[in-house]
Amino acid sequence: MDGQEKESNGFFDPIPLSRVKRTFGAGTDVFEAGDLTFSLYSRAIPVPDPETADEEQLRHALVPAVLAELAVDNRGCGEQRLAFFGADQTENNCAVRHFAGEGLTGIGQGGKWAFFTDGEADTASGFVPACILGEEDEENWKFNNGKTGLLLLKVPPGERKTWRFAICFYRGDTATYGVEAKYFYTEYFGRIEEVGAYALKNFQRMKEESQETDRAFDRPWLTKEQRFMMAQAVRSYYNSTQLLVAEGKPIWIVNEGEFRMMNTMDLTADQSFFEGRMNPWTLKNELEFYLERYSYTDQVFFPGEDRLYPGGLTFCHDCGVANQFTRRGHSSYEKTKLTGCFSYMSQEQLANWLCCAFLYAEKSGDRKWLEDKNDVLLACFESMVNRDHPQEEKRNGVMGLDSSRTKGGSEITTYDSLDASLGQARNNIYLAGKCWAAYVMLERYFREKGNGVAAARAKRQAHRCADTLASHLSEEGYIPAILDEGCDSRIIPAIEGLAFPYEAGCREATEENGEYGAYIRALKTHFSSVVKPGICLFADGGWKLSSTSDNSWLSKIYLCEFVARRILGFDGETYTREADRAHAAWLTRPECSYWCWSDQIVAGIVMASKYYPRGVTSVLWLEEGVEE
Amino acid sequence: MDGQEKESNGFFDPIPLSRVKRTFGAGTDVFEAGDLTFSLYSRAIPVPDPETADEEQLRHALVPAVLAELAVDNRGCGEQRLAFFGADQTENNCAVRHFAGEGLTGIGQGGKWAFFTDGEADTASGFVPACILGEEDEENWKFNNGKTGLLLLKVPPGERKTWRFAICFYRGDTATYGVEAKYFYTEYFGRIEEVGAYALKNFQRMKEESQETDRAFDRPWLTKEQRFMMAQAVRSYYNSTQLLVAEGKPIWIVNEGEFRMMNTMDLTADQSFFEGRMNPWTLKNELEFYLERYSYTDQVFFPGEDRLYPGGLTFCHDCGVANQFTRRGHSSYEKTKLTGCFSYMSQEQLANWLCCAFLYAEKSGDRKWLEDKNDVLLACFESMVNRDHPQEEKRNGVMGLDSSRTKGGSEITTYDSLDASLGQARNNIYLAGKCWAAYVMLERYFREKGNGVAAARAKRQAHRCADTLASHLSEEGYIPAILDEGCDSRIIPAIEGLAFPYEAGCREATEENGEYGAYIRALKTHFSSVVKPGICLFADGGWKLSSTSDNSWLSKIYLCEFVARRILGFDGETYTREADRAHAAWLTRPECSYWCWSDQIVAGIVMASKYYPRGVTSVLWLEEGVEE
Repeated sequence: MDGQEKESNGFFDPIPLSRVKRTFGAGTDVFEAGDLTFSLYSRAIPVPDPETADEEQLRHALVPAVLAELAVDNRGCGEQRLAFFGADQTENNCAVRHFAGEGLTGIGQGGKWAFFTDGEADTASGFVPACILGEEDEENWKFNNGKTGLLLLKVPPGERKTWRFAICFYRGDTATYGVEAKYFYTEYFGRIEEVGAYALKNFQRMKEESQETDRAFDRPWLTKEQRFMMAQAVRSYYNSTQLLVAEGKPIWIVNEGEFRMMNTMDLTADQSFFEGRMNPWTLKNELEFYLERYSYTDQVFFPGEDRLYPGGLTFCHDCGVANQFTRRGHSSYEKTKLTGCFSYMSQEQLANWLCCAFLYAEKSGDRKWLEDKNDVLLACFESMVNRDHPQEEKRNGVMGLDSSRTKGGSEITTYDSLDASLGQARNNIYLAGKCWAAYVMLERYFREKGNGVAAARAKRQAHRCADTLASHLSEEGYIPAILDEGCDSRIIPAIEGLAFPYEAGCREATEENGEYGAYIRALKTHFSSVVKPGICLFADGGWKLSSTSDNSWLSKIYLCEFVARRILGFDGETYTREADRAHAAWLTRPECSYWCWSDQIVAGIVMASKYYPRGVTSVLWLEEGVEE
Repeated sequence: MDGQEKESNGFFDPIPLSRVKRTFGAGTDVFEAGDLTFSLYSRAIPVPDPETADEEQLRHALVPAVLAELAVDNRGCGEQRLAFFGADQTENNCAVRHFAGEGLTGIGQGGKWAFFTDGEADTASGFVPACILGEEDEENWKFNNGKTGLLLLKVPPGERKTWRFAICFYRGDTATYGVEAKYFYTEYFGRIEEVGAYALKNFQRMKEESQETDRAFDRPWLTKEQRFMMAQAVRSYYNSTQLLVAEGKPIWIVNEGEFRMMNTMDLTADQSFFEGRMNPWTLKNELEFYLERYSYTDQVFFPGEDRLYPGGLTFCHDCGVANQFTRRGHSSYEKTKLTGCFSYMSQEQLANWLCCAFLYAEKSGDRKWLEDKNDVLLACFESMVNRDHPQEEKRNGVMGLDSSRTKGGSEITTYDSLDASLGQARNNIYLAGKCWAAYVMLERYFREKGNGVAAARAKRQAHRCADTLASHLSEEGYIPAILDEGCDSRIIPAIEGLAFPYEAGCREATEENGEYGAYIRALKTHFSSVVKPGICLFADGGWKLSSTSDNSWLSKIYLCEFVARRILGFDGETYTREADRAHAAWLTRPECSYWCWSDQIVAGIVMASKYYPRGVTSVLWLEEGVEE
């Protein structure tokens, strides 16, 4: 669905895209064109918990390789043909490396990456492919200047030949600083040749796993646009991950796409549905790491006032950026004295940590972990309540005070580059929805734990929040984005928070005739009144998260689509089918399709958050039909 | 002498260059401007032989750090001023790293580079310096997104403060492939913090060594242009070096500037005068490495004929490129079936290896090494002779056959990007001069060894070569660049080869009234007839190595200047003073001065060979006067 036509450069005549058939899934990507078939087999499989998995399971799950296959059908031709597969140097550090021997032939760069094959091949290097392929004497394929490395593949006349490739990556030294960690796979692979040998030896099994990945992220009820977006999103998530090891302990990192911040907590929350499905232990790992190293205790204040009130435990925005962990208790992102982008997200990340914690416990069944964290949950709860209002009787369930860490600024939400409608944290109905979700799940936890006092208090906060939100439903049928502060924007993410209780075992709280029915009904009214042309729909039918911003984020659209369809009962035919066509078109616009999956789309044009991991909110769509 | 005026960018007002005083040497580089003094102290000291030096000597010589000092005089100001020193990320791998504690404050990137100070400083990171310096709140200096890292230095009102910095580099993992080697300094430094601690602890000593380096590459008889060029050349050489260790053994590598080929043999020959002066063991190391891994035995053929004759032992062009050693017996550069650039240099490198071997023995006094290599020297000699003519009686001392490795092509010389006048190897008078030098030194060696037969044979070849060259002196007083092949170009490097016997203990061979007096006199005639406007001088007075090419190489100019003045007795006032003004102007042309020292200059414009190590031929100038 992507790509631009390439023109002949005088040496190569590219096959026109119209003659290329592409079959694209979350695991496989197959290109067929005339005599050629090229297949890529990527890894998107559950990662076993290093605390419990055995060595062979881990080695297999973590092998840093993508597989490829090239078939050349020369049966209609009476001459030998020369196929090639290779790459240019990705960095200046090393010249092209030729590998030969021990059943492996390969080209690569230093110890960092290599393309191996176990088939018959020659290796070549040179300035550009045309130089290499134009060599009169094969000996000159070993010329080692220039940035291009190729595997050269001779196809005899009248034969069809297939080559298997392992595209391998390796970094053996310290991979991150601040916390000095290595890649976990270094426990099992000592050098890139070992990666190549393993991948080629296990080629068939790994290929089948990639095919299984295609099926795992496909369902009959998905439209072709949904399939495409989910597959891209799953790939983009995996591209951003690292499993590290420091002092024998695993650290799961999801980098924030092009921004490269590490385990950004507001992304972790959105990715929790995916991780909860694939490998819940990674959520636990992230939560523990935040608790131990990236939590802090603040105070809070009312806007415009100097007086500080007790705040409480909360969490940083991220753990670092671009392989550099930040100092304890501080993110790479948050700055003081701001009211917009780069301000603190103390309330947002507190709610996110709680949502992830309950989702983890539900998806893993690890109730013990939750109980071990009882003191933390109590502290988080206290911190939540303190951000509402210092006086019990004046609490309305919605965040009313900002963190002292802002030093007089205002907290923001994950929607940092939108306008205030979604960007401001205080009195924001998007964030209030997440706080409600946290209170609902806290209530259930305390109740099951037998802590009646805390349960009752959490329930009171949940009701206050729900009542506050429902009571702000306007006569026109919407809840303004920011309560009581004169911001009249209309935002789709008012409904976003419902996903957490729904997924974390509190579905009854999301029922329109249940305990919070009035709130749920108000959200339904809100949703149906804002998802309309001229309000929260772009001209192309795509969703506009805020009526006052052209910046719309696909990950959040996917999540809200799920909430609207699955939880609130809106039908996809009316509300999302046409929209998803537009959303897929945003990603596949030729000049924007290079970055795999992107999140921030301004009026249909990819603006930022390229290579982003967050689109895996779309895996919630897998739950929307009846399994066969 | 370099640099362009920078304009204000709205935040910074650069100090006009006219107000900056720069004092530049091979070791130190000091900038004074108003209240500011910034000094850089680089390392250009002899490297001790790892086989014999003790640990502390090696640690000290190899510490991968450059020192800097910043003095801010705030005595005339009643307010605190904020100075800064830092850098942008050099690669994308890691975000800015902040170092603090153990007496060191620093910013850097991963474990690869860091700027440390032992003075009072804050660390800061951000998108650009203006963002960091404009922060209202110092806490925001820890914002960790963006590529810029700074050390921030507060200068109290009325004080003068000085900070000392260690600019450190570190690579702990495998640095090269093909031969897997690490940096030798990893034996003494386990991480970059240790480099910083050592450098700051030994700051004063290292600073004094840099000042000593200034003196080591300065002499009263040098013009200011010569001083400048030599200092740049020494720096550019050191920038290209690596001392590696593989399986406990040291490997000395000089990378070929921007081309990055490793220990390119034809550069090694030119750099041998420098290495012989600084640390002769590196020459031995290079020679042994070539012998063991990058030598080969070929056959030879006459141009246009298929019949192969015995060739012999010779050496590759290089050992690899950009940290990738090539397979045994093959360079990264040489290709078959060519007659120009990228063809084989079998004769050139054979002569170079021999020249380096004799120079090493002379400068080190390591006669034993030479005797241990007796069989190699005999084989090299045989190989030299075989390239002259297969029949003894038809030999003229000049290369007449090309290597079978060219597969029907023609060998070239180091001057690969010039025209045939210097580029073709066969019958080339530049290369013949080097072959003569090799025969002269072989003769002396065999004679001293007591091998009268070989000595006589070598002497015969030396005389044949000298006679052939002298006999080709034309009526106009020059020897054509290529003998008997219709190439009538006039080249300065006809005289180049004299440097080797002169430096390797065979000065008498270079005397105009000596054994080869006719040859020497012919060269004098040649030189004085070609170094003239319209022949081998550019309009600006700079030297044009070949009358038929605008591509002139500074390293070779420096070498030939030495030969002309010191050996042939031409006076510098007439022949080189004006030329050197032009040569320095080539390097300091603002748009070309960025690359430290460059070799290939086309009609005064730097064309290639940037950051090149070869300019250290200029250290021969240090011998041209009488030491005080």
